[in-house]
Formats: sequence, C-alpha cells, structure tokens
Amino acid sequence: MTDLVRIAGIGMTEFGKFPDLGLKGLSKGAVDSALTDAGIQPEDVEVAVVGNAVGGLITGQEMICGQVVLRESEIGGIPIYNVENACASSSTALNLAWMQVQSGAVDVALAVGVEKLTHEDKKVSLEAFSAAVDVEFVRDIIAAMQATAPKKEDGAPAGEAKPKSMFMDIYAAAIRGHMKQYGTTQEQIAQVCVKSHHFGALNPKAQYRNEMTLEEVLGAREVAWPLTVPMCAPIGDGAAAIVLVSADYAKSKGINGPGIAASVLKSGRLPSAMEEMAEVRAARAAYEMAGLGPDDIDVAEVHDATAAAEILAYEDLEFCPRGDGGKLVDEGATALGGRIPVNTSGGLCAKGHPIGASGIAQVCEVGWQLRGECGARQVEGARIGLTQNGGGFLGNDAAAQAVHILVA
Amino acid sequence: MTDLVRIAGIGMTEFGKFPDLGLKGLSKGAVDSALTDAGIQPEDVEVAVVGNAVGGLITGQEMICGQVVLRESEIGGIPIYNVENACASSSTALNLAWMQVQSGAVDVALAVGVEKLTHEDKKVSLEAFSAAVDVEFVRDIIAAMQATAPKKEDGAPAGEAKPKSMFMDIYAAAIRGHMKQYGTTQEQIAQVCVKSHHFGALNPKAQYRNEMTLEEVLGAREVAWPLTVPMCAPIGDGAAAIVLVSADYAKSKGINGPGIAASVLKSGRLPSAMEEMAEVRAARAAYEMAGLGPDDIDVAEVHDATAAAEILAYEDLEFCPRGDGGKLVDEGATALGGRIPVNTSGGLCAKGHPIGASGIAQVCEVGWQLRGECGARQVEGARIGLTQNGGGFLGNDAAAQAVHILVA
Repeated sequence: MTDLVRIAGIGMTEFGKFPDLGLKGLSKGAVDSALTDAGIQPEDVEVAVVGNAVGGLITGQEMICGQVVLRESEIGGIPIYNVENACASSSTALNLAWMQVQSGAVDVALAVGVEKLTHEDKKVSLEAFSAAVDVEFVRDIIAAMQATAPKKEDGAPAGEAKPKSMFMDIYAAAIRGHMKQYGTTQEQIAQVCVKSHHFGALNPKAQYRNEMTLEEVLGAREVAWPLTVPMCAPIGDGAAAIVLVSADYAKSKGINGPGIAASVLKSGRLPSAMEEMAEVRAARAAYEMAGLGPDDIDVAEVHDATAAAEILAYEDLEFCPRGDGGKLVDEGATALGGRIPVNTSGGLCAKGHPIGASGIAQVCEVGWQLRGECGARQVEGARIGLTQNGGGFLGNDAAAQAVHILVA
Repeated sequence: MTDLVRIAGIGMTEFGKFPDLGLKGLSKGAVDSALTDAGIQPEDVEVAVVGNAVGGLITGQEMICGQVVLRESEIGGIPIYNVENACASSSTALNLAWMQVQSGAVDVALAVGVEKLTHEDKKVSLEAFSAAVDVEFVRDIIAAMQATAPKKEDGAPAGEAKPKSMFMDIYAAAIRGHMKQYGTTQEQIAQVCVKSHHFGALNPKAQYRNEMTLEEVLGAREVAWPLTVPMCAPIGDGAAAIVLVSADYAKSKGINGPGIAASVLKSGRLPSAMEEMAEVRAARAAYEMAGLGPDDIDVAEVHDATAAAEILAYEDLEFCPRGDGGKLVDEGATALGGRIPVNTSGGLCAKGHPIGASGIAQVCEVGWQLRGECGARQVEGARIGLTQNGGGFLGNDAAAQAVHILVA
C-alpha cells in the first residue's frame, strides 16, 4: 500500500443555504482549507479538476467554472478541467485527478466539488435538477411507473397523476419494488433517517444538526410514498476539496494521509445490456482494484439521495446479501458501534446535498474517519473506508456511479 | 514514434444550422462515422470523454450529456466523462481520452465534441456565450478597453458605449493593439478571411462554402473595428469524434493512423503572474513533448474565432517572429502551397464554430491531411500537423488553451 496516491489535504465548507456565498466564495472556503491542511502552496498544484453540476443554470457561470473559482485561491496557469456527472460530478473530478497522479503525469493534483443550488426562486433550483436525466426518456419511465404503482397500505394510489418530484418518484418506485419483493418496511427507511440525523447532530458541517425520532420522520409530509420529507436530501450550497499527492512526493515531504486504493467510475448500462446496474459494477471493480472485499470496509459514505437509497446501497455494495438491507438497519449494523457504520457525516439527508460537491464531501468524511478526527462520531479503529456516489438517471440505471476505497 | 497513441478513427458531421438535429443526432453522426472509420465496434470502446460547452443552456440537457448522446451509438456502461472548457471543450476531452490511453489504463478511448448552438431565438444563442467568461471581471475589462480604445482611421471612436458582442470586442481590442504596435493592417486580416473562404469552398463539411473577395470582406458590416462580419466565426451546430488506440492495440489490429506526439492543456495566467499567455505556454510545452519545433509543422488548424486571432496565433505558435504575422499573410505562407498552410478546413470563420465541437474538428482536419485525404485542399506531403484551440476569457488571458501535435 506504500505506492498508493495519498490524500494530503482535506477541506470542505459547512453545507447549507448561504445566500451571500456564490461559487467563488464556496470554492475558496474548501480549497484554501484543503491546501492549508496539506501544507501545500497554491503554486505547487500541478493540475486541478473541478466538478460542478448545475452552477451554470443557477448562476449563469458555465464552461470555465473551474478557472473562475480557483483564481480566488491564487491557482491559475495549470491545466484545469471542468467536469460534470450530475450528483457524481465531484467524485468524477476526484477520479480524474487521481488518474493524473496515479499515471505519474503529476505529483500534486487538486480535486474540487462546488455547488450553488439555492436560488431566491426555489423553482429555479428544482428545475435545474431536470437536466440530470434524458428528459424524453424519463417522461416515459414515470408514466409506466404510475400505471403499475402499488397501492398504499390504506388502498389509496401510491403515485400521483403528475409527479411533484421526478427524482423522488423514481426513488420511491425503486423502494416500493424492494418492499414488495423483500418485505422492507417504511419503518426501516425511517430508521435510516433517524440514524442520519443523529450523525448530523454530531457533525458541525452538516446542514441539519437536529435529532429526529422515528415518529417525527414517519409523521412528516409525504413526498412520494413511502418517502417523507426528511427521508429526501435537501437543497443546499457547499464545496469540498481534496489534495492528492504521489507516493514519492508523500515520502519526500513526510505526508502520511490516507491512500486511494481504488477509484472507479462506471456509467449506466444500455437498455439492451444484461449487465448489473452501475453501482454494483463500480463496487465490484473497486474491490478488485483494491484487492479488498466488502467485509474489509470499516466505514462508508453512500449516496442516500433518499434514506431508502441507502438501504439499496447496502446490498449493491455487498455489505449484506440482496434483500437483507432492511435487516441491517434493524440490527443497527450501520449505526455507530455497529459492524459497518454508514454515513457518519449525516449523509446526503442530514449533512446536505449540494450535488456537485457531494462526492468529494463523502471522501472528506471517510478521510477524516481514517485520520481519527471525527470526534463524537468517530468509528473506532477505522482503517479502510468506502464512498459511493451516484449521478443522474438514464433508463433503467444511474447515469454515473463512482466508488472510491481509502486505506489509512 | 512507434509507441505513440494512434488516431484510429475520425468522424464529423457537416457544420451548419440544423434545426431538426439535437445533441443526440449530431453526436450520432460523428461517433458512428469515427467508429466505422476505425473498424471498431461500440462495445470495444473502454472509456469516452464528451466535450460540450453550452448545450445545457440551449437544450436543457446538462450534466449527463455524454451518457445521453452516446446511447444513440450503443455506447454505455463504461466510464463516461463530461467536460467543459468553453470553446476548448472538445480538445480538453481529447486530452483526457489521450491521457487514459497514454497511461496504459485503456487501449481504446473515444473523444467527442458536440454542440447545439442554434436556437429559434438567436438571443438565446448569443446569451449562452456570456457564460464563457468571469462575467463580473469582463465587465470591468470592457469598460477599460472602451476608455482607452484608439480611434478609427476616420477619427470616429472605435468602440461603442455598449458592446454588441463582448467576445468580438475583446478580440478587436487585441488586434487594434497589434496594429498599432506592429503595423498589421485591416487588409491583412481580411486576406486571412479570403483564404479561409477559399478553403471552405473546398471542404464539403464547411458551413460557408462560398469564395469571398478582399473587397467583399472589407465592405461587409462592421462588428467591432477592424472586424467585419465575415471575419468572425458564425453560430452553428455540429459534432466531431476521434477514436484513439494504444500503440500495442494499433499494432495488433494493423491500425496505422496518425500518432499523437503531444497533447497539452494550459489555463490562463493569474493576474499577478508574469508568465506568457496560455497559448504560448501550451505551444512550447507541446513542442517539447513532441521533440519538435515550429519549423517541423507542415499544416495547422488554429483558433480563428476571428480572422485577426489567426494572425496572433501565427506568432504565439512561433510560425514567425512576434509582430510578423501580417507579413506571413502577405507572403501567402499560410495559403495552400505556402510554407505552412493554416486552417485548410476553412477554419472557424468558414468551416464554422459549434464551439464544443471545434477542437476535435480541428484534429479531424489535421488527421485527414496526414492521411492524404483532403482532395483539392490537400497539403502535399504533410507529415506533421498541429492544432490550437482556445476557450473562454479570464482577465488578461484565455481561460484554456489546448495544443495537439500529430505525426503521420
């Protein structure tokens, strides 16, 4: 493991709604922190990759977002790549930065995720999301879902004639299928949310730092059955940054941060393909690259755009057999002190989900866990961690799925 | 040169205004052509990088553009990266695809540039461009330019109180400085445009295929002195694609396409930096990577967003000493039969400039030149070619500059 690309610096802003901060201010907060953490000067950065998903639609700053925001941290001249992969934009950025260091092209690379998602008109924020799908295709999917949607327990139709939230409708349909097939319950989904809020309350950077009871989660307004409002990731702003260095550079500078044992990006399968969904393929490829398996993982951050998606992730990442995700919740296996604590940051539901920043923010949390710096939410003895970050929908799969495995 | 990454397949659509074609149809045209040209099946592509600049603002398809458009060519499941760098978006995509093959990570990579720029409301197209700058910063620049702008030959102010075209105003200010310092004339700029239209008339994929006389170019409507309408790249739609393969793969399959001797991306300098502009730095780094110099270049495609920018590019790329760009035009050195023919495709001014596609389209042209397939516009005996593609503005430099050097 001594030849791994190392995480030399970690930085992120608090996540939340910051009307006075734009893409520049958010980025500067995360980048300057990461550079300081690494003890690396702006002029030492050889390449930068910046992930942003909807900043262009919200702020009008498109195309050269990275060059514009990094200038605030006195970074320029070097190759700067602007990348997008919806909610997986910044894990994609990290993957490309890692590739540049891993290949020997550079010794120091910066990966940044930044998102300005809040807008004085909330409709603008919500409409921006609609670009994360093949719009024509998803219209057909939703129509099909609604035609076949199961009824609620009281017999009322589970779907609505017109979806309030396209993404949440897709997530809701997926978990309804799981509930029917495996007996997963709404209470188990709510329990994930209770856990996330508990962790969020322990994370000073989380958007929501309030504990919630099972009754509060279940009694909240319904978004799309079985999902209630706190089970869905909120809209927010934020940024996160990681400084990567080569093994040789780390040695020469005495840097001893976590190593990246695997960095994998996969896209959604073709409609005609018989292969597994991208999340499963990305996880398997990452385990293979790292020479590790799901039993080796001590702590994980997964893409809980909804609390229900976290249960599906347990299975896709092979933390438990297919269908046993709900049981994992019942056993408390993914809570603090459990076999494999998940989303100790609070996850997307409580920490927040400024979408272009979320992937790197997951890596920040796992990096801090492996450095033993998480205080009250620290997983004791965590040595190996995993992050899973999904982006967009395309037909019967996510558009993109990125999995990273870190070792202390 | 036998270990170079090879261009196995080249494909592009005709450039122009295609109201019936969206991002999907445009991409499919280029990608399917490139795969057929390479004799490579969609399932053999291991990674794809897709450059698009303003498709999101024009069509609403953001964030996962690559996944959506590549599905039309039966490509999915693999890692797909969506990248932006304004007008240099697709040369950035090519650089990343090259890096993946060069590093040994994959044997077959696809790079695509696609742009849907036309819109039934032309204002939407024009406003989309404004995202390729740091908007706040450029406002200040333009104000400063206008305060100090030289007068026209007849004494009228050269600038207007409110710029009609921010980009063209910046280009015009740059060339006015050059005219003053080095004696470059409006006739020389017009002559570049005459050359581009001559080449465009010989290129069946060009948006403008009409010859123009010097008088017609000079007599056309003024955009920002000394630039007239035909001296400025038009708005259009299009796509271009390149299939790259590793040297080993090329050998095993008997593929003998041009090799990539250099692939370089640089960003604009910081306001405080004393370094050269990105175009100069990118060219020098590319010459060094290739072990070649400007005298070795037989044919080049440069970023003539205006005909004036082509003259500046001659100097930045060291085809002639600083200040001698105008003389190069007078000598006919960059015309067919000259010492170093430039923009044989017709360049951005005549071939067209669907911005996210332009960088790869340049590489398509040079690739075809090195394969000897350019018919009436063929540069005899072309063995080494260069492309230069700039993107966006940021303060006193381009936001991004990419230079590629190809060898037959």
